[in-house]
Amino acid sequence: MRPSKRRSNCPVSFGLDIFGDKWSLLIIRDLMFKGSGCYGDFLKSGEGIATNILAERLDRLERAGLITRETDPNNKTRLMCALTQKGFDLLPVMVELIVWGAKYDPKTGAPKAFVERPHAAREKLIRKITKGMRKSGELSREDK
Amino acid sequence: MRPSKRRSNCPVSFGLDIFGDKWSLLIIRDLMFKGSGCYGDFLKSGEGIATNILAERLDRLERAGLITRETDPNNKTRLMCALTQKGFDLLPVMVELIVWGAKYDPKTGAPKAFVERPHAAREKLIRKITKGMRKSGELSREDK
Repeated sequence: MRPSKRRSNCPVSFGLDIFGDKWSLLIIRDLMFKGSGCYGDFLKSGEGIATNILAERLDRLERAGLITRETDPNNKTRLMCALTQKGFDLLPVMVELIVWGAKYDPKTGAPKAFVERPHAAREKLIRKITKGMRKSGELSREDK
Repeated sequence: MRPSKRRSNCPVSFGLDIFGDKWSLLIIRDLMFKGSGCYGDFLKSGEGIATNILAERLDRLERAGLITRETDPNNKTRLMCALTQKGFDLLPVMVELIVWGAKYDPKTGAPKAFVERPHAAREKLIRKITKGMRKSGELSREDK
């Protein structure tokens, strides 16, 4: 995967230029929720990432400032990854991906606490945008 | 891009199997916020999607039940795309991507209303998870 060149000033595109692939957000997930940190931890994740893909994605995430890599003080031959604040700030994106996946995947392994969390402010915003879209006819007719 | 095979029961992986690439969420974005609906609308977006990539992604999104495609009643030669409820339910993911991109991209074109929306419940959850991660040493040291 070649380094992404900036495609537009859209903030969605800005994010996808960094982590718009099938693996990067799984690495972020492992750092966020599974306590992973070393190379071997990521390889053990259920999705079976290949070593070359993992190495490339870690490089990219480090260059984009989402993770750091430092020598493990307990084992000088081992590099440990950690999220930076910029990487950790993807937590809300991750939470919403979990909520969406849990809703639509019948085989979901999502933790109940995430899916049922309170989100009054979010729902208010969603209702407002939905109302606007229905009015202007942008939402699929079968869902109205 | 070949059809994705299910990699795990993780809800994040479930989503990325469908839209884990640089383009799919931009198509969803155009349907959600820009009033796009026909093939030509997507091609006009700032990122410059190629016609073959667009066609493949629309197929994939339709197969996964995120969009529908119907003949335009005003122009029988034209197919119009619309979000299904399943596709529309990616709105919170999209909002969080916008908030993140707006925070970290100095050239952001993000609408102010999204970035400054109230999100008390979300922040409470984030504080709780952050606290847990700092305790267990999973967050990069430089950000503590």
